[in-house]
Amino acid sequence: MKKILNKPESYTDDMLKGIYAAHSEVKYAADDLRCYCTAKKVPGKVAIITGGGTGHLPLFLGYVGEGLLDGCGVGSVFQSPSAEQIYEISKEVEAGAGILYLYGNYTGDIMNFDMAAEMCDMDDIQTMSLVGADDVNSGAPEVRRGVAGIFYMYKAAGAKAAMMGSLEEVYNAAKKAGDNARTVGFALTPCIIPEIGKPNFTLEENEMAMGMGIHGEPGIWNGPIKTAAEIAEESLNTLLGDMPVAEGEEVSVLINGLGATSVEEQYILCGNVLDILHSKGIKTSHVYVGEYATSMEMAGASITICKLDDELKSYLDYPVKTPFIRMN
Amino acid sequence: MKKILNKPESYTDDMLKGIYAAHSEVKYAADDLRCYCTAKKVPGKVAIITGGGTGHLPLFLGYVGEGLLDGCGVGSVFQSPSAEQIYEISKEVEAGAGILYLYGNYTGDIMNFDMAAEMCDMDDIQTMSLVGADDVNSGAPEVRRGVAGIFYMYKAAGAKAAMMGSLEEVYNAAKKAGDNARTVGFALTPCIIPEIGKPNFTLEENEMAMGMGIHGEPGIWNGPIKTAAEIAEESLNTLLGDMPVAEGEEVSVLINGLGATSVEEQYILCGNVLDILHSKGIKTSHVYVGEYATSMEMAGASITICKLDDELKSYLDYPVKTPFIRMN
Repeated sequence: MKKILNKPESYTDDMLKGIYAAHSEVKYAADDLRCYCTAKKVPGKVAIITGGGTGHLPLFLGYVGEGLLDGCGVGSVFQSPSAEQIYEISKEVEAGAGILYLYGNYTGDIMNFDMAAEMCDMDDIQTMSLVGADDVNSGAPEVRRGVAGIFYMYKAAGAKAAMMGSLEEVYNAAKKAGDNARTVGFALTPCIIPEIGKPNFTLEENEMAMGMGIHGEPGIWNGPIKTAAEIAEESLNTLLGDMPVAEGEEVSVLINGLGATSVEEQYILCGNVLDILHSKGIKTSHVYVGEYATSMEMAGASITICKLDDELKSYLDYPVKTPFIRMN
Repeated sequence: MKKILNKPESYTDDMLKGIYAAHSEVKYAADDLRCYCTAKKVPGKVAIITGGGTGHLPLFLGYVGEGLLDGCGVGSVFQSPSAEQIYEISKEVEAGAGILYLYGNYTGDIMNFDMAAEMCDMDDIQTMSLVGADDVNSGAPEVRRGVAGIFYMYKAAGAKAAMMGSLEEVYNAAKKAGDNARTVGFALTPCIIPEIGKPNFTLEENEMAMGMGIHGEPGIWNGPIKTAAEIAEESLNTLLGDMPVAEGEEVSVLINGLGATSVEEQYILCGNVLDILHSKGIKTSHVYVGEYATSMEMAGASITICKLDDELKSYLDYPVKTPFIRMN
């Protein structure tokens, strides 16, 4: 296992110590490193809390900051944060306007966020919950996993909250972004969970896995690596088959590197994706390329499209400032 | 070779097509994709041009934009851009106040930038040249390679130019940043040049290479992977041995991922680096963690420190907006 670390069992906490040491804009609540919060509370603003396992930076905690989220429950590598952590973060970041829980559609996360919501309810803290479920190849819409497309939900909710929208308005902004976002991902190599020390799956030399999840969940086919243009074409067929986009409509495109894939390759893929969209008469704006939801040192990428209107564009244009992500 | 691409020989140009398609803030001059320029020319501002081989994103072209650089000559993977390209970019971005050529200390680059300077001289375009040479383990000061520490030179020069400093002032700002910056890097795995198709060196399972360059230039030792804390300690001994920093003085820290190394690991290393600096009574601010100078899918990282004073801090605080890097 070729990783820069001290002890596998301290991977998550050592990472957190580094983040807190580097960035004074964030802090932790309840004397627990894993209760990650913004240091800047805005009275009267809807708070937004996310959470999930370690190993996906900047997902999840990297989205905590101005114009985005207020707190993040940090689990161990690929593990859910606990209900108690979410509850402690809730008490810390709640600012009088309620809390939106916004996270990926995974069973453990749902269970713990729901339990935290019940604990908040007993304290008269109002919560609403919404999950990201954008990974088209992971199943029927109601069971889909949340992957990089949650970026659009964070961005919409964060902007609406910063504009001092109500809890329901923030929820609706995130839901609208989620309803319009679809993702397809694929892996070229596995990654290694530090405490396990060996890859969670294997791929042959020259083999890729289409549709693989960010924890190594099996995809829809394994086979020889396709060219960037072929991957772009198959992925867009899947995306547009699931969510039709008419000629003349506009989409945002997010090309997300899973970890080991170079930014150079991400842009090669981006060029092919944009070419195909333009050839169909679909307009593009707000093109994002880089690491938004990773799987440590997995090689591969995902392609997300989000259908835009003026409302969603205004959310994307809203400034953002976190230790990991700046947009202005 | 597990890469997302079309043909190895079109890797650089396909990447560039993707970048231009995604980002309208940049364009190319002389009908040559590899003559990369900002689309926004500021009359009377000193222009800054860099250049180098493909495979190091965001180095080099990612630093072209507001508050940073004006143009970048793009070479093939790990190859220098041509003198003609630098000259064409010079004619495009020159805005009446002269041009600073600011790039890494590599023989091919020096030859071609010098030739471009002569061509500019015949056109009465004034140029000055400065190279980054921050890689302590690559040799004596006068022969050192430029690696991630050039970030500080770009940042200082870019800020001074945006403040409408003269060519000499911009040169001096970059020189001061370079004089105060030192880098140590190490690799855990090699990368593959697309047109070659196999790794440029090999490392055993569990072996690392201390001091390796970003093109796979040999380092000072190969041996078993050390812990993050051990790597931080050895690296800081090297850095502070070369450039003493007294108790009470302040440094900026840049932890740079070489490509495949996860951001989680970069923060683990960051935590150890900051701990050691603080234990020596050295203050830290302006901590940067992420990919600033990569080697495609190489695993590994580099550690740069830059000794700060109020002048250098004002350059670091100056806002930056490029398609790859935003700071505000």
